[in-house]
Amino acid sequence: MGKEFATRAENYSEWYNSLVTKADLAEHSAVKGCMVIKPYGYAIWEKMQAALDKMFKDTGHVNAYFPLFIPKSFFSKEASHIDGFAKECAVVTHYRLKTAPDGSIVVDEDAKLEEELIVRPTSETIIWSTYKGWIQSYRDLPLLINQWANVVRWEMRTRLFLRTAEFLWQEGHTAHAKKEEAIEETEKMLEVYATFAEKFMALPVLKGVKTANERFAGALETYCIEALMQDGKALQAGTSHFLGQNFAKAFDVKFTTAEGKQEHVWATSWGVSTRLMGALVMAHSDDEGLVLPPMLAPIQVVIVPIYKGPEQLAQIAEVAKKIKTNLEKKGVSVKFDDRDTHRPGWKFAEYELKGVPVRVAIGGRDLENGTCEVARRDTKEKETLQQADIENKLEHLLGQIQDNLYKKALTAREAITYRADTFDEFKKILDDKGGFIYAHWDGTSETEQKIKEETKATIRCIPLENKQEQGKCIYTGKASTQRVVFARAY
Amino acid sequence: MGKEFATRAENYSEWYNSLVTKADLAEHSAVKGCMVIKPYGYAIWEKMQAALDKMFKDTGHVNAYFPLFIPKSFFSKEASHIDGFAKECAVVTHYRLKTAPDGSIVVDEDAKLEEELIVRPTSETIIWSTYKGWIQSYRDLPLLINQWANVVRWEMRTRLFLRTAEFLWQEGHTAHAKKEEAIEETEKMLEVYATFAEKFMALPVLKGVKTANERFAGALETYCIEALMQDGKALQAGTSHFLGQNFAKAFDVKFTTAEGKQEHVWATSWGVSTRLMGALVMAHSDDEGLVLPPMLAPIQVVIVPIYKGPEQLAQIAEVAKKIKTNLEKKGVSVKFDDRDTHRPGWKFAEYELKGVPVRVAIGGRDLENGTCEVARRDTKEKETLQQADIENKLEHLLGQIQDNLYKKALTAREAITYRADTFDEFKKILDDKGGFIYAHWDGTSETEQKIKEETKATIRCIPLENKQEQGKCIYTGKASTQRVVFARAY
Repeated sequence: MGKEFATRAENYSEWYNSLVTKADLAEHSAVKGCMVIKPYGYAIWEKMQAALDKMFKDTGHVNAYFPLFIPKSFFSKEASHIDGFAKECAVVTHYRLKTAPDGSIVVDEDAKLEEELIVRPTSETIIWSTYKGWIQSYRDLPLLINQWANVVRWEMRTRLFLRTAEFLWQEGHTAHAKKEEAIEETEKMLEVYATFAEKFMALPVLKGVKTANERFAGALETYCIEALMQDGKALQAGTSHFLGQNFAKAFDVKFTTAEGKQEHVWATSWGVSTRLMGALVMAHSDDEGLVLPPMLAPIQVVIVPIYKGPEQLAQIAEVAKKIKTNLEKKGVSVKFDDRDTHRPGWKFAEYELKGVPVRVAIGGRDLENGTCEVARRDTKEKETLQQADIENKLEHLLGQIQDNLYKKALTAREAITYRADTFDEFKKILDDKGGFIYAHWDGTSETEQKIKEETKATIRCIPLENKQEQGKCIYTGKASTQRVVFARAY
Repeated sequence: MGKEFATRAENYSEWYNSLVTKADLAEHSAVKGCMVIKPYGYAIWEKMQAALDKMFKDTGHVNAYFPLFIPKSFFSKEASHIDGFAKECAVVTHYRLKTAPDGSIVVDEDAKLEEELIVRPTSETIIWSTYKGWIQSYRDLPLLINQWANVVRWEMRTRLFLRTAEFLWQEGHTAHAKKEEAIEETEKMLEVYATFAEKFMALPVLKGVKTANERFAGALETYCIEALMQDGKALQAGTSHFLGQNFAKAFDVKFTTAEGKQEHVWATSWGVSTRLMGALVMAHSDDEGLVLPPMLAPIQVVIVPIYKGPEQLAQIAEVAKKIKTNLEKKGVSVKFDDRDTHRPGWKFAEYELKGVPVRVAIGGRDLENGTCEVARRDTKEKETLQQADIENKLEHLLGQIQDNLYKKALTAREAITYRADTFDEFKKILDDKGGFIYAHWDGTSETEQKIKEETKATIRCIPLENKQEQGKCIYTGKASTQRVVFARAY
């Protein structure tokens, strides 16, 4: 164990890759481009799922499940959608294998599908073809449905959690009678995502809309939350799309209004994925390992006994188990690690690596003094506390850590958020420090594309309720009415 | 709405199909063989998942996620596994589509995979290839991992929930240092399944082992729980496999024992699927619709107001909301249906169809008398109760309904459980009544196969702790030491 990986300063990218593997979050699988999410990583994802799922249900949504496969022809129905998605995808062409005369296993050419099936890269098409059967009247609306699922987008260059061929996500797909309602839904779900990121992940996010270039294929407007990682690169953490009537028209989904007219339905879709795991790792962790916000930590408190002989261990275990039981009653997850196969120092390093927010050590002297040593993962501060009322103190400490992580991330983001007024200044900031750069842009896709080609920076978003001000595009010098947020991104 | 479907007596199969669709549980999708699980059906599945997931965790298991795709060659590594699974499967051969000169979307032949990928029909191979990297020493064992996932087994003739190409399930895959431990795990998880079926689904099950013919491809022993449906056909509700060292050998997974020796790891796998939804529907429902056990009902109590004018509705709503709030504090899920778009009679039929265990109606006279009318779905009994302490009465009633459904199902099963001593008797029972038939069998696969060909009945299981008795095989007359359980099955 130990710190057998690069520091962030040495090589941020390598640091991330090693950390994800060494902290037992995920690993590359034998299948190119696909990852294995290991139990510790999956436990964090389960906590994310539970929190999000509750927020979706509290806002009136229900879950359902739609097919993994989508007929090829469905993608052709929404013109812009096909360009965005159907190109890099897993195509099922046959439904049987057979044993060849030489004993090897081969595809049975007699079992060729009439129409190829695409493994879903996103489910708008199959869902809207289904909604056609569910929606007749305004009484059937709104339809507020979410799906937890795996999706596949073929990727040649993959990174654990950030870019993999298969990933896990949720995709909400809602149908509305009115345009305004659909826009309201789109904005509401963006707000849910932002709240989740800030409250659970301790991750400050910018809320905004994407430019036309960066919009979801088939959307009229894509809202997003954008986070900034420690290396100054941005990461899109969630998107919420106003789809207008595009999919309703593509799949002919109409409803009878209260006045008896036939109209096309208005749509939204919104999603977050296991990519959030990557954001979580990169936002808070340090050179010693993961730093997890208590709200998402599978183990919130670990208790490590420091003992000589089985008798002392038994005495410590008695104290530890009482603390554990009392904390669990408060809903705190606690692990008492009394394994005799590893020394305390090894365990300390292990739980640092795993990002456990609070470590409690109890030794012989603590037994005598009625104390314990409490160490917090985020600041690495240690203090010796009386065992009396320790459960309330630890619960309070977990809250403090959660708050501190958010504030620290916010401060870090603000420290690398800039304004640039010339293209030279813009490029210099990008190369020196990275970060978010607020700059004027002439509003054209051409300019956006040229800036991207020359600097690898993209417009992350046009912030919601953006300040309007007169200025000149940093690239073309043309007039602009607002600054937009640029960054290099994951 | 209403009973626009066949009764069980008229056509059990048609009754089932209509009920699943009309009660909004699931429907066939535009993709051949794949189903859409609708929100109401999915809500039941979520309750099943939550209960099972807790039981898995309480027995020391953790969740993880493995790739959807499995390289074709992996299936060849375990000889019997390939025959059982890899034949009818979805094969991914390409990873890109392109636009053809005529504008249509076609598979890009330049993007052909070197090795085809199989959409997982079950994950033993990909998981054991991964475990090879995770297991070195006895200290790494046991490995107790579960996965919630979708799987695909190509099916030409499908039935909602019971047999579909894609379905949802969980698959546990554990690794052990000792044979006995693995067998103990296999049996423990069978017990978990049996407890779940009986306690949550109110479904009595037989526990037993499969014959060699019916064993999982790659297992040394397959344990199962078998349930009996109202039409006398059996349904396998869950299986737990002792895999011996087959997969460890196929993927070369060895560990160093405490004594420093290298040994192959022992394995188990176990799973239940959305098939349980089919079992749930068929076990309890009646000609009016679903009958759901309270433990799995998304809505446990529905309150329907019967009112004249908005003023009376407001008075009823006050009472209803108080009951709702108090019940929710007890963890009971309640819906107050005050929609003015539908009449009470329509709502009554609707909630009968949906299987809501308890319906509470409150009308004008109830307001005067401080009463409400309580109807239970299982027996259709109604009684007028005082509103005072109604929450405790309803909570108690839900428990009674849960118990009653189990007892009713057990009685129904016992009423169609038979012993047959001759083949004529055996065939007569099958044709007249169906059900479980305990009969002597000579223990050979040949005889089992012949009985199946002649009667469509299979050996569902050899019950655990089966009574040993001398007898003669009903088919060959050869000596037998125990009766096994035959039935026609789903």
